[in-house]
Amino acid sequence: MIRAAILRLLADVGYGALTMDAVASEAGVGKATIYRRWRTKQDLVVDTISDLNRAEAATPDTGSLEGDLRAMLHSFVAVITGPTGAATLSLLSTVPHHPALAEAFRSGPIAVWQQAFGEIFDRAEQRGEVPPGVAGSVIGETTSALLVQRWLLTGRRIDQAYADEVLDNVVLPLLRGAGSSIA
Amino acid sequence: MIRAAILRLLADVGYGALTMDAVASEAGVGKATIYRRWRTKQDLVVDTISDLNRAEAATPDTGSLEGDLRAMLHSFVAVITGPTGAATLSLLSTVPHHPALAEAFRSGPIAVWQQAFGEIFDRAEQRGEVPPGVAGSVIGETTSALLVQRWLLTGRRIDQAYADEVLDNVVLPLLRGAGSSIA
Repeated sequence: MIRAAILRLLADVGYGALTMDAVASEAGVGKATIYRRWRTKQDLVVDTISDLNRAEAATPDTGSLEGDLRAMLHSFVAVITGPTGAATLSLLSTVPHHPALAEAFRSGPIAVWQQAFGEIFDRAEQRGEVPPGVAGSVIGETTSALLVQRWLLTGRRIDQAYADEVLDNVVLPLLRGAGSSIA
Repeated sequence: MIRAAILRLLADVGYGALTMDAVASEAGVGKATIYRRWRTKQDLVVDTISDLNRAEAATPDTGSLEGDLRAMLHSFVAVITGPTGAATLSLLSTVPHHPALAEAFRSGPIAVWQQAFGEIFDRAEQRGEVPPGVAGSVIGETTSALLVQRWLLTGRRIDQAYADEVLDNVVLPLLRGAGSSIA
């Protein structure tokens, strides 16, 4: 898979050292295949970023906000501790210098996760589990923030047990306090 | 100042493209001055990272946990939106590939902030404002996590008003729920 090869290379060498030839070689395809699809390295990486997490952030529908959030956080852990997480970390320093990459992140993976969390909170609102507006509030931001901090900054352990700890001790208590009736 | 020149260069060109000559030129000193102090680029960057935030993370002592946390979060906002924040973001992608940089971050700025937050929670514990163990818990991690997520991942607005919003709607409610008696 060309996409998997791109993610591996981004994680290993970063954006600066990535070349179209290396992508062809790593993916085991001819250079013409790569150039037919993408004109420049930037096109290739923007396209790769834009498509990140479309599958992984599929919105769960367990029937309760707690169940949905738990499933989402477990998916998020799997993504950030896998090849996508390593490639993203490797790209982050480049983003401020390349508006096209920044835009690809915003309209790609960041929007994908925000939309998935948004749907979960919408359904919870319809069930009367949370008041309106939680998804876009700072309480909504806590769902991913602690995982992101360990992933990008402190490098401390991230696993499903940690996601559960965050959910049980931070996210759910805040949602209960937001005037809701979570079971 | 050599240190300020290093931070500017790291923010602008990143670790990969940084050279000792560029540091000398940006700082307006001779190359000999740079090489006398640091043998290699890695030495220079490790030393710069290790010293980050020693001054900025000075622990406030306002007499209350809420006052201390507000002062700390305002300092943290100033740091991450300034030259240190830009240089750190520019280094992040390099860190996984250079254990010496990772160690410099852990024993330098990350330890400095953790210690400052630790002192604040210690004093709050002595005053009976929080139960023991909050500093090292996931609740302790929320103090910085939402700011870190906007800084490193989403690029959304970070200012003192946002820090206050995080403190008032996330951190303080969780601390109150932790069996405490915050005013």
